[in-house]
Amino acid sequence: MEYTAVDSTREYLARLETGADWRGEIEALARTEEIEAGWFNAMGAVQDAEIWFYDQDEQEYGSVTFDEPLEVAACVGNVSTLDDDVFAHTHAVLSRRDGETLAGHLESATVFAGEVHLRAFAEPLVRQPDDRTGLDLWLNES
Amino acid sequence: MEYTAVDSTREYLARLETGADWRGEIEALARTEEIEAGWFNAMGAVQDAEIWFYDQDEQEYGSVTFDEPLEVAACVGNVSTLDDDVFAHTHAVLSRRDGETLAGHLESATVFAGEVHLRAFAEPLVRQPDDRTGLDLWLNES
Amino acid sequence: MEYTAVDSTREYLARLETGADWRGEIEALARTEEIEAGWFNAMGAVQDAEIWFYDQDEQEYGSVTFDEPLEVAACVGNVSTLDDDVFAHTHAVLSRRDGETLAGHLESATVFAGEVHLRAFAEPLVRQPDDRTGLDLWLNES
Repeated sequence: MEYTAVDSTREYLARLETGADWRGEIEALARTEEIEAGWFNAMGAVQDAEIWFYDQDEQEYGSVTFDEPLEVAACVGNVSTLDDDVFAHTHAVLSRRDGETLAGHLESATVFAGEVHLRAFAEPLVRQPDDRTGLDLWLNES
Repeated sequence: MEYTAVDSTREYLARLETGADWRGEIEALARTEEIEAGWFNAMGAVQDAEIWFYDQDEQEYGSVTFDEPLEVAACVGNVSTLDDDVFAHTHAVLSRRDGETLAGHLESATVFAGEVHLRAFAEPLVRQPDDRTGLDLWLNES
Repeated sequence: MEYTAVDSTREYLARLETGADWRGEIEALARTEEIEAGWFNAMGAVQDAEIWFYDQDEQEYGSVTFDEPLEVAACVGNVSTLDDDVFAHTHAVLSRRDGETLAGHLESATVFAGEVHLRAFAEPLVRQPDDRTGLDLWLNES
């Protein structure tokens, strides 16, 4: 395991814009506030969603799209930099009218309403390719 | 997107009372400590649950009730004021014995056991009607 | 309801080791940093998972095992001490390729990739048997 202590700089509450992209909104906040590392929680509802699942053997993402209104029952993610740009790694748990649940890596989703808490850290968090998983990870072994 | 930086005042850990209402307990903590804005995470188990799903076209909530023991696999929410009273906007992911999952806006649930982390903010957070969604939202465009 | 205000000491970001046990990694971080109380959020993917469900009537845990790759869509938990050892009470929401979701009390899981935010508190948090639920809970009524 690799880990680091971090110092929080500021924290934010955000209301995501109806019709905008869920992840794009979080990245826009990070860019505006020059946040290169952070942790967030969010909740709300979306008008559609594209979820990714990582194939651990093939080492590539597959995608599934849901073109329907969904609650965002829980959303957990973090902000880091990837290829010199801000990246909000976002996972979400979505639900239908009857409580049926869908979840995974949230690539994109059209915001209906979104409430976010973001905590920014002083130390940059940089993603780099990890050979073992094929993913871009932070705190890689040096 | 609307957002604001917030300053944390205090943070709390709570053990919810067996037999009490899950959301009511969180609101009781907020009232006792005079918290008008906060963010929380919780986990535990409930004896039953009423989940709401917002119909984005009709702009009204529908309800579904589960009268059975469920784990609270994840619970994310925030504290704000609505019509001058404390409101804990609560989403939850619940699960059954075989891992099957149910999720959505948690209107009410009878606590079996509940563990909560609540972070309080100095700045008040006030919900007001939002025309576009029909919801009561905070950080509305002025 | 029982609750307490807590003071945060330090906070950490961790990258869990591929092939290690998910919960064991979080407990290892707590032991190394001498953390006896904390709250965490995590996300990532696992190679398998054992989920527990608490039977509220029989007051005993049942177990279900998933021997397949799963996303960790959300993971919420807390660190306390139980029988003088560190215990990371861990709940998780897992998902399959098509978005299908499984959730519950995460007993064990083999890490594929894991990203964790842990907030440590100054005040110890001790689990003791609770007669009403049969669980080991913290902040018990004295």
